[in-house]
Amino acid sequence: MIKTKSGAEIKEPVGKLGVLLPGLGAVATTFIAGTLLVRKGLALPIGSLTQMGTIRLGKRTERKFPKIKEFVPLADLNDLVFGGWDIFEDNAYESALKAGVLRKEHLDLVKDELEQIKPMKAVFDRKYVKKLDGPNVKKAKDKFELAQMLREDIRNFKERNNCDRLVMIWCGSTEIYMEPSDVHRSLEKFEEAMKKNDDAISPSMIYAYAAIAEGVPYANGAPNLSVDIPALIQFAKEMNVPIAGKDFKTGQTLVKTVIAPMLKARMLGLTGWFSVNILGNRDGEVLDDPESFKTKEVSKLGVLEYILQPELYPDLYGNYYHKVRINFYPPRGDEKEAWDNIDIFGWLGYPMQIKINFLCRDSILAAPIVLDLALFLDLAQRSGMHGIQEWLSFYFKSPMHAPTIYPEHDLFIQLMKLKNRLRHLMGEELITHLGLEYYD
Amino acid sequence: MIKTKSGAEIKEPVGKLGVLLPGLGAVATTFIAGTLLVRKGLALPIGSLTQMGTIRLGKRTERKFPKIKEFVPLADLNDLVFGGWDIFEDNAYESALKAGVLRKEHLDLVKDELEQIKPMKAVFDRKYVKKLDGPNVKKAKDKFELAQMLREDIRNFKERNNCDRLVMIWCGSTEIYMEPSDVHRSLEKFEEAMKKNDDAISPSMIYAYAAIAEGVPYANGAPNLSVDIPALIQFAKEMNVPIAGKDFKTGQTLVKTVIAPMLKARMLGLTGWFSVNILGNRDGEVLDDPESFKTKEVSKLGVLEYILQPELYPDLYGNYYHKVRINFYPPRGDEKEAWDNIDIFGWLGYPMQIKINFLCRDSILAAPIVLDLALFLDLAQRSGMHGIQEWLSFYFKSPMHAPTIYPEHDLFIQLMKLKNRLRHLMGEELITHLGLEYYD
Amino acid sequence: MIKTKSGAEIKEPVGKLGVLLPGLGAVATTFIAGTLLVRKGLALPIGSLTQMGTIRLGKRTERKFPKIKEFVPLADLNDLVFGGWDIFEDNAYESALKAGVLRKEHLDLVKDELEQIKPMKAVFDRKYVKKLDGPNVKKAKDKFELAQMLREDIRNFKERNNCDRLVMIWCGSTEIYMEPSDVHRSLEKFEEAMKKNDDAISPSMIYAYAAIAEGVPYANGAPNLSVDIPALIQFAKEMNVPIAGKDFKTGQTLVKTVIAPMLKARMLGLTGWFSVNILGNRDGEVLDDPESFKTKEVSKLGVLEYILQPELYPDLYGNYYHKVRINFYPPRGDEKEAWDNIDIFGWLGYPMQIKINFLCRDSILAAPIVLDLALFLDLAQRSGMHGIQEWLSFYFKSPMHAPTIYPEHDLFIQLMKLKNRLRHLMGEELITHLGLEYYD
Amino acid sequence: MIKTKSGAEIKEPVGKLGVLLPGLGAVATTFIAGTLLVRKGLALPIGSLTQMGTIRLGKRTERKFPKIKEFVPLADLNDLVFGGWDIFEDNAYESALKAGVLRKEHLDLVKDELEQIKPMKAVFDRKYVKKLDGPNVKKAKDKFELAQMLREDIRNFKERNNCDRLVMIWCGSTEIYMEPSDVHRSLEKFEEAMKKNDDAISPSMIYAYAAIAEGVPYANGAPNLSVDIPALIQFAKEMNVPIAGKDFKTGQTLVKTVIAPMLKARMLGLTGWFSVNILGNRDGEVLDDPESFKTKEVSKLGVLEYILQPELYPDLYGNYYHKVRINFYPPRGDEKEAWDNIDIFGWLGYPMQIKINFLCRDSILAAPIVLDLALFLDLAQRSGMHGIQEWLSFYFKSPMHAPTIYPEHDLFIQLMKLKNRLRHLMGEELITHLGLEYYD
Repeated sequence: MIKTKSGAEIKEPVGKLGVLLPGLGAVATTFIAGTLLVRKGLALPIGSLTQMGTIRLGKRTERKFPKIKEFVPLADLNDLVFGGWDIFEDNAYESALKAGVLRKEHLDLVKDELEQIKPMKAVFDRKYVKKLDGPNVKKAKDKFELAQMLREDIRNFKERNNCDRLVMIWCGSTEIYMEPSDVHRSLEKFEEAMKKNDDAISPSMIYAYAAIAEGVPYANGAPNLSVDIPALIQFAKEMNVPIAGKDFKTGQTLVKTVIAPMLKARMLGLTGWFSVNILGNRDGEVLDDPESFKTKEVSKLGVLEYILQPELYPDLYGNYYHKVRINFYPPRGDEKEAWDNIDIFGWLGYPMQIKINFLCRDSILAAPIVLDLALFLDLAQRSGMHGIQEWLSFYFKSPMHAPTIYPEHDLFIQLMKLKNRLRHLMGEELITHLGLEYYD
Repeated sequence: MIKTKSGAEIKEPVGKLGVLLPGLGAVATTFIAGTLLVRKGLALPIGSLTQMGTIRLGKRTERKFPKIKEFVPLADLNDLVFGGWDIFEDNAYESALKAGVLRKEHLDLVKDELEQIKPMKAVFDRKYVKKLDGPNVKKAKDKFELAQMLREDIRNFKERNNCDRLVMIWCGSTEIYMEPSDVHRSLEKFEEAMKKNDDAISPSMIYAYAAIAEGVPYANGAPNLSVDIPALIQFAKEMNVPIAGKDFKTGQTLVKTVIAPMLKARMLGLTGWFSVNILGNRDGEVLDDPESFKTKEVSKLGVLEYILQPELYPDLYGNYYHKVRINFYPPRGDEKEAWDNIDIFGWLGYPMQIKINFLCRDSILAAPIVLDLALFLDLAQRSGMHGIQEWLSFYFKSPMHAPTIYPEHDLFIQLMKLKNRLRHLMGEELITHLGLEYYD
Repeated sequence: MIKTKSGAEIKEPVGKLGVLLPGLGAVATTFIAGTLLVRKGLALPIGSLTQMGTIRLGKRTERKFPKIKEFVPLADLNDLVFGGWDIFEDNAYESALKAGVLRKEHLDLVKDELEQIKPMKAVFDRKYVKKLDGPNVKKAKDKFELAQMLREDIRNFKERNNCDRLVMIWCGSTEIYMEPSDVHRSLEKFEEAMKKNDDAISPSMIYAYAAIAEGVPYANGAPNLSVDIPALIQFAKEMNVPIAGKDFKTGQTLVKTVIAPMLKARMLGLTGWFSVNILGNRDGEVLDDPESFKTKEVSKLGVLEYILQPELYPDLYGNYYHKVRINFYPPRGDEKEAWDNIDIFGWLGYPMQIKINFLCRDSILAAPIVLDLALFLDLAQRSGMHGIQEWLSFYFKSPMHAPTIYPEHDLFIQLMKLKNRLRHLMGEELITHLGLEYYD
Repeated sequence: MIKTKSGAEIKEPVGKLGVLLPGLGAVATTFIAGTLLVRKGLALPIGSLTQMGTIRLGKRTERKFPKIKEFVPLADLNDLVFGGWDIFEDNAYESALKAGVLRKEHLDLVKDELEQIKPMKAVFDRKYVKKLDGPNVKKAKDKFELAQMLREDIRNFKERNNCDRLVMIWCGSTEIYMEPSDVHRSLEKFEEAMKKNDDAISPSMIYAYAAIAEGVPYANGAPNLSVDIPALIQFAKEMNVPIAGKDFKTGQTLVKTVIAPMLKARMLGLTGWFSVNILGNRDGEVLDDPESFKTKEVSKLGVLEYILQPELYPDLYGNYYHKVRINFYPPRGDEKEAWDNIDIFGWLGYPMQIKINFLCRDSILAAPIVLDLALFLDLAQRSGMHGIQEWLSFYFKSPMHAPTIYPEHDLFIQLMKLKNRLRHLMGEELITHLGLEYYD
């Protein structure tokens, strides 16, 4: 047990940490291959706050900036073990080659380790992801039984790999749009609905349920509901399991949650924001289905509304037009491109425009988020935190939050929240940027 | 006297506040005309934090978001009186027409008031701004005498307009590049150098000196040194005068101080940042001179270095190439355009690009900053603050700061600093975004 | 009668030329108002080849470049009279104001003339344009009777305005997608179908029919079939009426028919072309309906296929992905914006990208095309040309052409075709750009 | 001897064709490696008109589109032999690796052939290219002697490689700006100046002189004068040597000579054109020197003036502002990027903008031009053409032309000129695009 300055207790990160990934596609394999390369000293974990980041302690003049991974007791990369489920039978090496994110010459450096990662049979139903289908799928009489099979997978994985702890990060495809309904309201109703094969129970919910039931922290990288329903939030609290979600904040929305706060900071008005994406990977293909797109669209649209607070600033943000389009465009593969046109107005209402063209790589931006979430959720569990981890909002397009408050989308507030949460955990003084002391 | 919760005392903003502007060009006239239009209810002061902004007090669940101008005791727009100096004899209406920022139909609505604002003779020397020249210039035997003439202008303006208080905001052109030297080290040396007509004393320094000598708060909207030298910083403290600068943060750098923090927040590396500007106004013409450009360039280049902290993150920011170009391009007039190409890298070093094209308007972005600085500097003086006001860094490309610390360039840290400074002044709790209470 | 060098005879352009416009919206009123302003010497007809263009005659060393309007006998702008139909009752001034293309201060200079242009009742059916509806609509027992009413309108207009000749240019909205069917095969079937109110007869066909029946040249500025069906092409030949279409080539497609020929000229390959448009005018609203969009999409997509000739260049163009998106985005009004991303490859297959962002104005680009087509069609009729005028392909996204040949989309071939057609008409030598004579 | 339909005689392309390249850097090695790869069937010569292009013969309905290389008797790629000079001693493989254009895995496929290509000692003087220097340089008492040494190199190369014919293509760096002066006026003066080591004789002129003296066709891929002076033009005619130049038209200017003709075709006015380039290869480094940049700038600026013909169209093009900037930006390497902002106006003067962002690869675009010029110059010589080959303007930013005429910059006129020249050579009917026959 580590005892922090504030008296909090944190279990030490000894032994193996298993990272379980539903969906062994582009994001998951990029994360695994990258972590293996980093472990061998062949690449750097760029984009990972836990690995590269520092945290300021004390005053600016003290110049104390420890690395985050030296400040809080995180699992060591060498202690990670990887597993997952997928509807295709390809092992992680084959899947990574097909995804076309990392170059073959890089994958070959960790080929052996990747080939040993073979997907377990997935819980899957085309009803929820219309554009995909695959052979490596579990069969059972109902969804409850599927959940039990997943739990068994989890226990087997833990034992087989001699893991001390586990975390699960959803890296699967975006499911069709659903709103929380009555069966999601309590654990009882939810379990009953699983037994009745109710349509309101999607595969990603079954994974979340199984994880929590096994005491495994769970994060959701896609915009579908998954763990973000009252039944599972309550279940997580009861089981002392930290959860987080939803929808990794990577390309266009990452930029949006930076530019929108800039507009608000400077009180510049907005008349319209048009966002278009072109991408050609499996994700793009799945989102070519209007029902999956809607799930993503809702996730992407909410961001502006919460950051700009039109109810507080009706003259500035009471009447803007926000449109998001995602286009499947195969020539791009995983190298997606975002184009934003932002119509703003300043002093006396005079119009201006900002245009942003982001030539990004979907999985390259997502992979370090998987790593950070795995390590932070594990830290959270060892520190006795459970339920929604709002301090991890930093990583999500649609951050989960307490029902009494609005979600926080501003990337910089999210970062401050995250870092002050860590300072608080370790009993360090919170940063307010007041800084009067330098002028006495 | 207002007494805040914390016991601080603030003098009430009664009577007229004179706003004195060296340089009655595009920025100054856009500010003046706009303020007049707003006062008449004909337009909104978009872009002004003091007029449009709110500040959150207490917890998110309390939903307390007063307007800033209702939270702190600022001067009322109706109490502002405007004056200034310029090397051309045009009154503010004529000058605004030539600047071509606001449309004639808008200017005509406040034509009478604008025509009455006639520039006082300027302190000017072509040695410091090679591309400009004009007839409305003071003559004197030395720079010290010029300073005395400015002081007399200030006193006359105050009396003639029956002002209770004054502030001065430099809206003149960018002077040639200079580094602080020995004559800037103390007030004695500085005054002596003025008397000797030392080249190290530029016109903008003479204005700053005169303002402080008259007890008038001073802010510098251009990148030249002006008040940012030890002699005048010391003088300001002694005279209980708040000062701020330098170089209004408007178009490209505004965006840069938002995107660079995003990269750092997410630990994305940088290999190169190429920034080009095209603009066709008088500012563009002045910056076509390499010596003035250098002043601006230094101001624009420093931003990345301080935000990205290469010494802390050598793998991410130890080796990037940063280039800033400004091109005089007459077809654009005041509607300048910025184009940024940003070469970044993520997970395992894979490269990506961000391209930002900002079609902005120089003076439209600068005008509300003039207003905010006038009101905040006046507030600072009434609250007993003096010397460098680091909490106003939010408005500047090259924020002035205590010698012991580095400047803060991140727009969001700057905003937090500003707002927590106001909360502190009024005795409200500072915001840390920890937010644990919502999850008990 | 004018007799050209080649012996051809052209009727002189004496008397009034009536320009009839189905659809008195943004394009039509911008054209009318502009022509009136030009006539008064208050503006220039920028964008009009007939008014601004020159034509080279003879060798480069002769430097003979007469203006086109001095080379061929075109109607004088002062002889134009304007009329039209619309589903709204607004006169041309009111309609132009609502369209928001030209500034009020410009429209007011020709307010009187514009106000006198009141739309005749339109032939309209929401079945063909789902997003629009208006009160100023003709009622009749069948489509044939509607055609007779239009013919009466035409005759009345000619008499009332004392016109010598007429032309009609479709400026109405895009109708839903239709393919030519059996009832379009012959005039008899077409007339019978009108009498039966067959769904295959759209309003724009009824206008075209009425025009031809009255001996009036007809051009179609929208992508719907209108005159581009065998029945009406045959009818036009029989009636000695020149016709042209379809779909004005303005913003994005104009650029596309210039960039694609560049790629082909240089044998650069293409893997993908993604085109997105945002526009907020009535046209954008109409195209928000998938059925109208399809008509436009087919028109916009064909361009690449014909220019790039994948059957000739399978290695370069046998496998590209072309996608066109149009998004209704109200903040933009008539100032539409196009963004094209073009993925190309060069030597040994190495990839490159071209990105084009066109901030254009729909009606500003279309208006001079209306003028040119009116004048050229009138010239064609006076010169004895009839049926499809392929030499006017220059103006269209989907040029009409003889059934034995493919349409010509390359803007520069189109221009050469147009100019050599004029040279041929006047008996001048055709230009081939061989130019050996300068090196003898 | 081949006899064409028109009776012209062309020597058959039998035996080896030696391609001599002053400057074995990025462009030259990309050309050589690519040609070797194509020869082995490992890649396609994308971008090469001679290899990929077709030419239409007869009417559109005849559908006769032979490949250019089957239409005119060009040398076969298998008959090419490569040689060159460079100031560095690297062989072609080493140089290609350093250039970083082609990936190592591609270069390795032709490593052996590349390694055998070792540069002969170059004629070089830092006075003309300030940013470069290297050890592999000829020494002689004067420039005339240097020329003789080059002639000997050429003869040795021809004999050693058993070549039937040779061509030389300048692929060296851009020399400093020079204007033609008196010593360039006649061959006598030129030779005399060489003997006097006159500064007006640059290295690229010495190469051109040596080539012509040996009867070798010469093309100049850089903007410096080289062969474009009266003395050498006259010399080429006397020696029956075809010559061409100058400055390969690749990235930004290629696009410019397509967009400017579009504006003119549609009579759209121009107020400003701002072009910026970022590139990080050796070319970028050389152009970082203001004197070399000026040579390039003059070459790039002339384009608009000639295409737009302001003297013919003063209302449209009489007053535009054109600025070209090139920035050395190392992060980009050979993958240069161009950004063009084009301010245009249409109907009644209303403004619009076009922005073009070209992410291109310098050498990938230039390599196929080297190939085409080698083959076409050889064809020209075998067909008895000599002196300036204006029909090759298609490939150049600053096409050489007869003194009586203006240069032709419009890419499409250039292409028409090239193709009609080939049709003329082979006795085929020239294309005029009149096309009346399809409508009889």
